[in-house]
Amino acid sequence: MQQGFEQLGLIGCGLIGGSFALALKRAGCVRRVAGYSPSLSTIERARQLGVIDTAAASAQQAVAGADLVLVAAPVAATEAIFKTIGEAIAPNALVMDVGSTKSDVIAAARAALPADKLPYFVPAHPIAGKEVAGVSHAEARLFENRQVVLTPIEPTLQAHVQRATQVWESTGAKVIIMAPDAHDNALAAVSHLPHLLAYAFIAGIAGQAQGARFLDLGGPGFRDFSRIAASAPTIWRDILLANRAAVLAQSATFRGALDRFEALLRAGDAQALEEAIAAASRTRAQWQPEVMVPPPKV
Amino acid sequence: MQQGFEQLGLIGCGLIGGSFALALKRAGCVRRVAGYSPSLSTIERARQLGVIDTAAASAQQAVAGADLVLVAAPVAATEAIFKTIGEAIAPNALVMDVGSTKSDVIAAARAALPADKLPYFVPAHPIAGKEVAGVSHAEARLFENRQVVLTPIEPTLQAHVQRATQVWESTGAKVIIMAPDAHDNALAAVSHLPHLLAYAFIAGIAGQAQGARFLDLGGPGFRDFSRIAASAPTIWRDILLANRAAVLAQSATFRGALDRFEALLRAGDAQALEEAIAAASRTRAQWQPEVMVPPPKV
Repeated sequence: MQQGFEQLGLIGCGLIGGSFALALKRAGCVRRVAGYSPSLSTIERARQLGVIDTAAASAQQAVAGADLVLVAAPVAATEAIFKTIGEAIAPNALVMDVGSTKSDVIAAARAALPADKLPYFVPAHPIAGKEVAGVSHAEARLFENRQVVLTPIEPTLQAHVQRATQVWESTGAKVIIMAPDAHDNALAAVSHLPHLLAYAFIAGIAGQAQGARFLDLGGPGFRDFSRIAASAPTIWRDILLANRAAVLAQSATFRGALDRFEALLRAGDAQALEEAIAAASRTRAQWQPEVMVPPPKV
Repeated sequence: MQQGFEQLGLIGCGLIGGSFALALKRAGCVRRVAGYSPSLSTIERARQLGVIDTAAASAQQAVAGADLVLVAAPVAATEAIFKTIGEAIAPNALVMDVGSTKSDVIAAARAALPADKLPYFVPAHPIAGKEVAGVSHAEARLFENRQVVLTPIEPTLQAHVQRATQVWESTGAKVIIMAPDAHDNALAAVSHLPHLLAYAFIAGIAGQAQGARFLDLGGPGFRDFSRIAASAPTIWRDILLANRAAVLAQSATFRGALDRFEALLRAGDAQALEEAIAAASRTRAQWQPEVMVPPPKV
């Protein structure tokens, strides 16, 4: 980055917010971090870990004097947060969120941010994470070689999209610009649906009389397939609800594909089953979108 | 192991068979390995890699003089292989397979092995693997800290179950004894169903007009959830067909669980959705069946 920030006002000091603060400090992109969390233990832990420098007593206090604001809270809390901090945000401060859904966050921004702050809002979604939550798991390199989607809206200033791009690139991420709808539809398919399926998969096994014994026989395939079923309930409750129409549409498409596989199984059609598996197997074996961008020199 | 083997007759030199040979060599449990594969390039590669010492010209030749026989081929080929090698198996030789399904392999053994060889047959399933197949991916430590299920049948001699246990323990695996049906039902739930779901998941995305663009946005969650969708088509065609009744029953149970999650989403019932997610999340977070048995001293 050519131009660093004086102060990051961080609302929400969890895995993503904490990792963002650490990444910016590591890149030398921010002088100090003022953090706020509704949980006193979280904020204390964040300070102990060096994620934040100042524990703010309120969300307004965290953003006061900040030239960069990151809202890193469950998406359902976005509107209330914007309402709380809207007037306290400094003029010209770059404002971003990190929500896994964008249309609802944008609606919240339009409803709750003062009109003169909207040009400085750049909706962002870093496609990175872990199945464990909380600031204790935050790490400066969480975004390295990951994709970050920015979904600017009509009032967003182009100069701020560029600044947002620079900030995320300084964390080692690759930035993609998309329309909010396109983002939400794509993420429903490759992220929200797998979470729904993984939760249902575990619930289906756990609900059986022999479920616990079955689980004892899970191997490496089970481990990886079901890893995301351990993800944080409140965060994923919000994401699935916020993007519900697209998620249900993807689930219907998935059911159609499952119908076809089951029909081939029932029919004992070995050749067609092999072809269907082979097509999926090729697609997955060729998948390699994880970007390998070297982190920029600071 | 107190008592090693003179010769392993290996039928099928792929990931699992090759890893078994390497593991036994590493443990000093076998003097030489004679291997057979219907693919000349596979057998040549297996010799180059030191997986086998002798490239047998036929399955019979591989088992001639072997006091340990491992059939490590796609499960649908088991009956034909047993028919071919049945008479050539030496008296007292321990015979095992590595199939992911056991009832069908046992039916094949009863149909195709000479009656006097059945007491020496110990059906085995190492719960280990990768999404990549082939001898090039074989490794001596593939079974370390993994579970191996033995499903002895009525004629199986207890002494041979013990020998089989020792052999697998020498690879670093933990051995479990189960009834064949119980094995097949459990594996349908924790292994075969996830493969079916992963294939259908990828097929569902790939079949959409925007599918390729969606896939570009897959992150770490997508990567792990869908990893097994890259698994070998012929192997998984056979497994799914061989265990089809149990797999379809598990798929129906899964659909029931998915119905419930979708109903909560449609209803926008945030509290019940969070509870359902939280229950699954706790179950998965507590899951830790991966055994940590130190490999035995040889």
